[in-house]
Amino acid sequence: MPKFERHVFVCQNARPAGAPRISCAKDGVTDLAPQLQQHSRAAGLKGRVRINKAGCLDQCEHGPVVVVYPEAVWYGNVQPGDAEEIVLEHLVGGRPVERLRLAEECLNTDSCPHRPA
Amino acid sequence: MPKFERHVFVCQNARPAGAPRISCAKDGVTDLAPQLQQHSRAAGLKGRVRINKAGCLDQCEHGPVVVVYPEAVWYGNVQPGDAEEIVLEHLVGGRPVERLRLAEECLNTDSCPHRPA
Repeated sequence: MPKFERHVFVCQNARPAGAPRISCAKDGVTDLAPQLQQHSRAAGLKGRVRINKAGCLDQCEHGPVVVVYPEAVWYGNVQPGDAEEIVLEHLVGGRPVERLRLAEECLNTDSCPHRPA
Repeated sequence: MPKFERHVFVCQNARPAGAPRISCAKDGVTDLAPQLQQHSRAAGLKGRVRINKAGCLDQCEHGPVVVVYPEAVWYGNVQPGDAEEIVLEHLVGGRPVERLRLAEECLNTDSCPHRPA
């Protein structure tokens, strides 16, 4: 087993109260990476898929944010309750979860209408 | 500018002293992500390439470890002084830095001879 078949990064960024951009690591998100890990192990993906904690992924207005490589599928507003669906549909089945995908017009661009001016 | 052209993850894991596996975040590695960020900005890659901090990438014996997606190129024993070469050769030029690549027989496998038994 060489490279991971998929490598999943879960933003853990927490800003101080009052920061202009919001934080992925707000209430509940601390459960997201462990939930993904638990469902991934249960699905037999240990060693093939890695669920990784990450610093700020810079899509803050759409957090909690997750990105899956090598296909570069971005998810936004992911809740711990979404973890099982992401694992079974995407990581096992190879079908990204469309309802959670971050809109192309919001991804990695200052013109995203949700960013502060 | 939609998806990042490249997304670079730099392990920041620090274990307590005496842990069986070593840590990427030992002396000096705290300078690695900032060095990559600085050279990336200087090369005009802001917004196109993201240098990201990451939790444990699980290749601990070869740390400090860096992985570049979407091509899934893994680097080991990366020092802050290697940052400029990675940026100019790989992130700008598209040529991975072969001397820093993690050996295939060590990547993501319990049979890596450098792992503790």
